[in-house]
Amino acid sequence: MGWVWLDGRLLREDEGLLALERAIFYGDGLFETLRICGGRPLFLGEHIKRLMEGAAVLGFAAALEPEALACAVQETVAANEATEGSVRLTVIRGRGPGLYPKASAPPLVLVTFRPGVPYAPELYVRGFKAIFVSFPRNERSPLVYIKSLNFLENILGKKEAAAKGADEGLFRNTAGYLCEGTVSNIFLVREQTLVTPDVASGLLPGVTRKVVIRLAREAGLPVAERPVRPEELFKADEAFLTNSLLEVMPLVAVEDRMIGDGKPGPVTCFLRERYARYR
Amino acid sequence: MGWVWLDGRLLREDEGLLALERAIFYGDGLFETLRICGGRPLFLGEHIKRLMEGAAVLGFAAALEPEALACAVQETVAANEATEGSVRLTVIRGRGPGLYPKASAPPLVLVTFRPGVPYAPELYVRGFKAIFVSFPRNERSPLVYIKSLNFLENILGKKEAAAKGADEGLFRNTAGYLCEGTVSNIFLVREQTLVTPDVASGLLPGVTRKVVIRLAREAGLPVAERPVRPEELFKADEAFLTNSLLEVMPLVAVEDRMIGDGKPGPVTCFLRERYARYR
Repeated sequence: MGWVWLDGRLLREDEGLLALERAIFYGDGLFETLRICGGRPLFLGEHIKRLMEGAAVLGFAAALEPEALACAVQETVAANEATEGSVRLTVIRGRGPGLYPKASAPPLVLVTFRPGVPYAPELYVRGFKAIFVSFPRNERSPLVYIKSLNFLENILGKKEAAAKGADEGLFRNTAGYLCEGTVSNIFLVREQTLVTPDVASGLLPGVTRKVVIRLAREAGLPVAERPVRPEELFKADEAFLTNSLLEVMPLVAVEDRMIGDGKPGPVTCFLRERYARYR
Repeated sequence: MGWVWLDGRLLREDEGLLALERAIFYGDGLFETLRICGGRPLFLGEHIKRLMEGAAVLGFAAALEPEALACAVQETVAANEATEGSVRLTVIRGRGPGLYPKASAPPLVLVTFRPGVPYAPELYVRGFKAIFVSFPRNERSPLVYIKSLNFLENILGKKEAAAKGADEGLFRNTAGYLCEGTVSNIFLVREQTLVTPDVASGLLPGVTRKVVIRLAREAGLPVAERPVRPEELFKADEAFLTNSLLEVMPLVAVEDRMIGDGKPGPVTCFLRERYARYR
């Protein structure tokens, strides 16, 4: 074991640091964030399914057991006596030689709990505001379709949103079509029909997105998944964002231009309530 | 402090893990890898300059002191009594609220040492072989131009190379032009002239790339930095790759097609020696 400089001090390199190496060095892993509601991690099976799909892309799915991951989440929730909040399940490729190790140690599983859910309830009344991120998402990169530890484009998108006083940044792909927000999927509503960018536009297929599509269809609202031009936003009656923690978020303005009448719309409110009852 | 699941055990969340959080969770940081030669970290000033440029893109440059970073590297080299090998300087954004924290703790500096340099000397005699990576680099993403902890595209590129028995994977951009290797820059030689993709093609401007361009020009070899079509590789007399650890690497085949006569070329060998003398 050699000497390591960490935060101003020379320390002996330890096993803990080495085990985390591929996350710290390369972001070589995946994560899921789940809402805890009444002590229950919501849609745990769906989240683990998506993580397993990501692990297949990165090449370490065979070393993971879905049941063991679910167990780790449940035990962390129990240990924290968590009723409301969120857990983050992080899975990191095990150590091995070279940039892409053909053989590596088993993946490292890390589960962390945070009490509470961010954002103020007022935002659901006022509505969320977004901007367009200045650089495009690469719809031809495999990373766009998995929830990897490479999250810097999202951070830079959020940085741009923050600089403009907005709540969210919306990505467009290299062809100019709408993809997703930095931490959300997007839906438009026009004439009682939902429209959302198709996965091939370059987006992470959200668990909440999937549930909302199902709930909408069950309620007789047609949902079209297709390429969406950004300009369509301003022709929509209403729009909303979805993610696992903040669920269904009314989107009322983009780049300071109002969507619909600039207020949370009735279809958004209907689906928000329906989702809250269902989950 | 809550309970954390780590590698099969429930532990109290500790300061060490929290300090590394933004690296583990998002890859929110930067790194540099430097060769140690005769106890000396090579081109330390250049590497720190590039890291500072990356920190400006990520928004935490003001919290970093270049002299302190240089000092951390030098002290790590000394503590390890290192004569040959490499150091990796990793800088992680400090913790703060939200995905993009407007205010955050000071960045965390991590320096690690590895003895020796990878790859066998035989490869310089036989020559390196590459493939084209199947997905494009996004030349419009700010991440392509900085050496961030988001290194998964490079890992996936290396995975594709390994699957085909090649040493390196070459990225093309969304317009089909050549960019760089997963851990290297690329040069072509034709009629005693060097050609290398310009930075705007979508690449990390390597320290070795910069030094080689200067050394070539000093030796009377013109160097053109411009968009390069992948097909030009097969019309070149020779080609080589560069990086800080493996320096000037002859590239003799791409996708099983020979470059030049399929052997390390004279200009490559000349620059390799010149670089070794200069550094």
